[in-house]
Amino acid sequence: MEHSVVMKFGGSSVESIEKMQAIAQRIIKKKSEFRHVVVVVSAMGKTTNQLLALAKQAAKYPSKREIDMLISTGEQVSISLLTMILNELGEQAIALTGFQAGIKTSGLHTKNKILDIDISKIENYLNTNHLVVVAGFQGLNEQGDITTLGRGGSDTTAVALAAKLGCTAEIYTDVDGIYGVDPRLYPEAKKLDVITYEEMKEMAFLGAKVMEPRSIEIGQRYKVPIYVASSQNNHTGTLIKEYTKVEEKSITGLSISEKVMMVTIMNFSARSSDIATLFVALAENEVNVDMISQTPAGEGLINLAFTAGADDLEAINEVLEKITARYEGLDVIKNMNVVKISVVGTGMRTQSGVAAELFKLLADHQIEFRLVTTSEISISYTIDKKHMKKTVEVISSHFGL
Amino acid sequence: MEHSVVMKFGGSSVESIEKMQAIAQRIIKKKSEFRHVVVVVSAMGKTTNQLLALAKQAAKYPSKREIDMLISTGEQVSISLLTMILNELGEQAIALTGFQAGIKTSGLHTKNKILDIDISKIENYLNTNHLVVVAGFQGLNEQGDITTLGRGGSDTTAVALAAKLGCTAEIYTDVDGIYGVDPRLYPEAKKLDVITYEEMKEMAFLGAKVMEPRSIEIGQRYKVPIYVASSQNNHTGTLIKEYTKVEEKSITGLSISEKVMMVTIMNFSARSSDIATLFVALAENEVNVDMISQTPAGEGLINLAFTAGADDLEAINEVLEKITARYEGLDVIKNMNVVKISVVGTGMRTQSGVAAELFKLLADHQIEFRLVTTSEISISYTIDKKHMKKTVEVISSHFGL
Repeated sequence: MEHSVVMKFGGSSVESIEKMQAIAQRIIKKKSEFRHVVVVVSAMGKTTNQLLALAKQAAKYPSKREIDMLISTGEQVSISLLTMILNELGEQAIALTGFQAGIKTSGLHTKNKILDIDISKIENYLNTNHLVVVAGFQGLNEQGDITTLGRGGSDTTAVALAAKLGCTAEIYTDVDGIYGVDPRLYPEAKKLDVITYEEMKEMAFLGAKVMEPRSIEIGQRYKVPIYVASSQNNHTGTLIKEYTKVEEKSITGLSISEKVMMVTIMNFSARSSDIATLFVALAENEVNVDMISQTPAGEGLINLAFTAGADDLEAINEVLEKITARYEGLDVIKNMNVVKISVVGTGMRTQSGVAAELFKLLADHQIEFRLVTTSEISISYTIDKKHMKKTVEVISSHFGL
Repeated sequence: MEHSVVMKFGGSSVESIEKMQAIAQRIIKKKSEFRHVVVVVSAMGKTTNQLLALAKQAAKYPSKREIDMLISTGEQVSISLLTMILNELGEQAIALTGFQAGIKTSGLHTKNKILDIDISKIENYLNTNHLVVVAGFQGLNEQGDITTLGRGGSDTTAVALAAKLGCTAEIYTDVDGIYGVDPRLYPEAKKLDVITYEEMKEMAFLGAKVMEPRSIEIGQRYKVPIYVASSQNNHTGTLIKEYTKVEEKSITGLSISEKVMMVTIMNFSARSSDIATLFVALAENEVNVDMISQTPAGEGLINLAFTAGADDLEAINEVLEKITARYEGLDVIKNMNVVKISVVGTGMRTQSGVAAELFKLLADHQIEFRLVTTSEISISYTIDKKHMKKTVEVISSHFGL
C-alpha cells in the first residue's frame, strides 16, 4: 500500500504505561506523515521471561504447544494497553493478535517461521483510517494452534508485514542505530547511515546483537528497507538496504566474539575418515565448531585447529578424551585466551587487496593471529585476548569505522 | 457425546501452581470414571482485576474491545499452565482458548452472550482420547474480535459446553453446595441435595451468590444437569435440575437482602400519570426500585411505598426533593432499618396455602412485615432489621431448610 510504514517497538520500549504513552506520541506524529501506520509491539519488559518461569514451576518439561499459548499472552497485553492509550488520545486504533492479523506460521512450537500473511484484515482497517497495532512474535499454524517465532520474533513480524505492504520497517530499539564497531570497544566508533543486508547478516551472525539474522533475510528477500533507530531520542538511525555500488565501502564493520576457545591437535591423521570422526563426535556432543584450519605435519599427519564457544569446554573435553584414547601420539593444546575479530564489508567482493591491506596492517602493529577464515564479504581472525583492544583501534581508525 | 462430563474450576481454585496441581489430581480421577472429560477454568485468582487496574492506568475510558482482548489473557494463562501440569503427569491434555474451542458470541464487548459453539474441534480431541482444557469466560464474535462473557462467564462456558455435549456440568467452587439459607444467618442450615433451575434462578436473583442466573437459564433451556460442589473436599454437592413433582418441597430456600431501604409517600396523587412521573424520575436517576405497594388514602389519594438499594439513598433524595416541590401536602418517610426476606419454592405453584402458612407463622411470632410481593414461586417480605434473625430461624426451622 502506498504511503505506509511499519513501526516496531521492543519490550523495553513498552515496559510501563508511561513508556507506552511516550511511544504513543511518536506513533501519532508518524501518522501525520504517512497515510497508513502499522505498529508491531513486543511483550512488556521482562514479561516473557516471567511467564517462562511460571511454566517451569508448573512442569519440569512444559509442553511446547502450551508454552506458545502462554507466552503469546505477553504481546496480547501490550497491544491492548497501547491501543487503549492511542484511542484515549483521540486516534482510531485497533489491536490485532497474531491470528487476527492473519499471520500464518509453520514449524516447531516456540520456533515457528512465518509462512504467509493474509493481509486483508489489516488492509481493511488501514483503508478505514485505523492505526493498526499488531502483536509481534506470534501467529497461528495450520492446525489452528497459537505459535511463537522464537528470539527476535517481533522484528520478523514487522519486516514480514512491511514486505506484504511494500513499505519500510522501522525498528525502534535501545540503541541509536548500527555502529561499525561496538562503541564500548572503540569509543570513537561512528554510527552507519547505511548498511547492506549482507553486511548486516554477517554482523549479526558474528556477534552484533541489534537484530536477528532471520528478519534481515526476509528484508533482503522482499527488498524491505529496514530503518533501525532509538525509541528514546530522535537521532538519525541506520538504514539497512540493498547493495548499491555507489555507496560501497571496503569495510563497513568489525565485530568481536569474546567467549571463544581454540583447540589445536598436533599430529592428527590426515585421512579424511579420521577427520570426519572427530567433527562428527563434536557435533554429536552439540559443540558448535566455528573456524577450522589444518596444515600438513609430516607423512600422513596434520596439525588441526578449530574454535568453538568457551561454554562448550566440557563437551569438547569429553570428545578429546575419546579421541586421544583412540589415536596415539596426539598433542592437544586448549587455548581459552583468544578472541575472534571479524571484519565485514561488501566491498571486499569487488575491491581486491582488502585482505592484503588487513594482513599488512596487523603485521605493522605486531599483532599475531592464530587462525584466519574468510567468506566473500568477511575475514575473521583469532588473536590473543591481550591484543584485542589494540586490534580494534588499529582497524577502526584505519578504515574509518 | 456419551460418557462425557464438563468440570469447571473458578479463579480461587487455580490461584497458584500448587492449587492447580491439586485440581489436576481431581481431573485425572474423573478421567478414570468418564470416557471424555472437558475442563473449563477461569483466570488465576485476582488476575482479571489486576488486568483491569492496568487498563484503568492506561486510559480513563479504556476501549471495551481492547479490555476484552486484555482480560481474556487471564484464562489463556491458566489453561496453558494447567495443561502443562496434566501433560507432565502423563495425561494427553490440550489447551484451547475461546476461539479455538469454537465459542461464538455476540453482543456488547465485556458483556457478550454465547451464540453457538462449533464443537467439532473439541469432539475430535475427545475422540483421540485427549483431556480438553478450555478457557472460560471468552469467545470470538462475528467480526473475529475476542470477547468476554461478563460476570460468571466461566460458568456459562461450562454449561453451554455441557449442553452441546449432552452431559452434566460440574461446577467446583468455594462452597460445599447450595444451602436453603445462608449458614452464616442460620447455622443449622441444611445443604440441598437437589434444587430446580427455577428455584435456583430466584435464589440467584434474590441474593444467593453461588452461580449467575444466566448459566442456570442455559442449563434449564438445554436440560443440562448442573452439579455444584467444593473444589477443596469430596463432600456431596447440590444438583440443579429440572422440576419433578415427586421431589417437590413447598419451600426450598430463603434469602436475605440486607442493603435495602424503604420509602413511604403518604397522600400521593392516585392518578396514574402522577405515579408514572415518580417512577420515571427514579429510573432516570438510576434508582433500581424493587418492591412496590400502594393503598388508597382518601379521595384521589394513595399511600405509596417502595424499596430500593440502600446505596441509592442520595439519588432517591434528589428525586424526592423534586417531587415534594411539585406536589403539595406529601408526607415522606424513609426507613433504612429494614431487610428483605425472600422465600422460594417451586411447590408454591401447586400447593395452595403456602403463603397462608407463612403469614400465620410470622403472626404467631409477632413478626410484622411492611411490604409483601409475590411471584409464582416466591414470596418476599420487608421486615424490620431487628426481626431478621428471628424470622430466619422461625421460617428455616418450620420448613426444615
